[in-house]
Amino acid sequence: MEFWGVEVKSGQPLKVNLGEGKVLHLSQACLGEIKNTKSSDSVCLYVNVDGKKLVLGTLNSEKLPQQLFDLVFDKDFQISHNWKNGSVFFYGYKADQPIDGPSYPSRI
Amino acid sequence: MEFWGVEVKSGQPLKVNLGEGKVLHLSQACLGEIKNTKSSDSVCLYVNVDGKKLVLGTLNSEKLPQQLFDLVFDKDFQISHNWKNGSVFFYGYKADQPIDGPSYPSRI
Amino acid sequence: MEFWGVEVKSGQPLKVNLGEGKVLHLSQACLGEIKNTKSSDSVCLYVNVDGKKLVLGTLNSEKLPQQLFDLVFDKDFQISHNWKNGSVFFYGYKADQPIDGPSYPSRI
Amino acid sequence: MEFWGVEVKSGQPLKVNLGEGKVLHLSQACLGEIKNTKSSDSVCLYVNVDGKKLVLGTLNSEKLPQQLFDLVFDKDFQISHNWKNGSVFFYGYKADQPIDGPSYPSRI
Amino acid sequence: MEFWGVEVKSGQPLKVNLGEGKVLHLSQACLGEIKNTKSSDSVCLYVNVDGKKLVLGTLNSEKLPQQLFDLVFDKDFQISHNWKNGSVFFYGYKADQPIDGPSYPSRI
Repeated sequence: MEFWGVEVKSGQPLKVNLGEGKVLHLSQACLGEIKNTKSSDSVCLYVNVDGKKLVLGTLNSEKLPQQLFDLVFDKDFQISHNWKNGSVFFYGYKADQPIDGPSYPSRI
Repeated sequence: MEFWGVEVKSGQPLKVNLGEGKVLHLSQACLGEIKNTKSSDSVCLYVNVDGKKLVLGTLNSEKLPQQLFDLVFDKDFQISHNWKNGSVFFYGYKADQPIDGPSYPSRI
Repeated sequence: MEFWGVEVKSGQPLKVNLGEGKVLHLSQACLGEIKNTKSSDSVCLYVNVDGKKLVLGTLNSEKLPQQLFDLVFDKDFQISHNWKNGSVFFYGYKADQPIDGPSYPSRI
Repeated sequence: MEFWGVEVKSGQPLKVNLGEGKVLHLSQACLGEIKNTKSSDSVCLYVNVDGKKLVLGTLNSEKLPQQLFDLVFDKDFQISHNWKNGSVFFYGYKADQPIDGPSYPSRI
Repeated sequence: MEFWGVEVKSGQPLKVNLGEGKVLHLSQACLGEIKNTKSSDSVCLYVNVDGKKLVLGTLNSEKLPQQLFDLVFDKDFQISHNWKNGSVFFYGYKADQPIDGPSYPSRI
């Protein structure tokens, strides 16, 4: 398992290439440092995958500076956001894709 | 493991078919882009499974734009919501159903 | 793994029987549809296990309509709540109890 | 895996003994029933481990009645809190400690 | 698996050395005891990894005293924060790094 953390700057969507046989667990997004604490910015997060643009969530500089996720990407994707006043940081970790076929019995 | 993300449009319940031997981990719901930031919409999420309609949670355009879940579906289900002003996005991932029978010892 | 979701009606505690060799992962509670959005109801959740009644958490119709959990029950239990104005929905999934004894090395 | 839930009364720290070869996953703390809903109590949670007292988190009777954790204890510890008006409930589950040594390849 | 908890004092970044073949799961940060409950401090958390300084999240003494994470570090890193009025506590657990190569079939 490998740490994964990126800064997505304002107006600069980021393509994420997974590499052969890898999956990426996306576990968090958070706003960068908030300089103007008087305004309350609402920031929309997007993911482009399989040619579709989906809304991943909404952050808020005052009320919701970060959000947990529990997503697994098994193919390349692109992340972006519409914050004009800073960067959004995305975090997670890379791991090997489990082999297809019937699984070992579960643990909960 | 396979990424799963869908847009459920206003008034259009979505049937989810899992496919043989698969389970779906439902890990998140979030409101689509919020255009009118002056009103505060309360949005109820529903799941239909086994002929029952259950309330899955409540989102709010102002206070609670997304919610994590930790649910596993091993049979087909339907998701819907009562938001009049936009779509709700649901996320998770598909995996193989673990084999029945006594499990390997646990990890925590 | 098997989806598990129940509606616990007002004033009607619910006994949960796990079945031989099964554990239940309780992962969420949420309030049913909130009809009177003008009042703010505080709802206490309880679990009875091993002859003890424990407070599982507090929901609020206005501020906290749902709550995630990460609990594992390996014996029968009872859930209840004190909401007068509606049902509370509990969710999770059933899995096989892992075998006792030293475990396989961990993944994180 | 074994359910674990305790009530920690006001002014009564609780020692937790794990037992040989066991680990405890601490997954939640919540305030007991809140009787005086007019005051807003801030409650600090503590854990004593390896001779150090650490702040585990802060609950609030009005705004934050419970908090999830994702902690693993592999040695005995003590939990306490500074709420004068009630008990705090801690939850989690016990499991076997995974064997040391290189692990099986990961799942995410 | 091994409990990991540290206090990061004001103005004192902390280097975390993992040890050979280990990974650290970072699962939580929380503010230390809040003495002045009249002011609302916004606290930015940072992680230095691979020569880059990333924003890990924002806590608030009034509204958001703690935050869950789900991060895995497979290399040494440094954590710090900009709170002038106290310590921030970070929690998680250490485990063995899973072996590289194709994984066992998944559980969800």
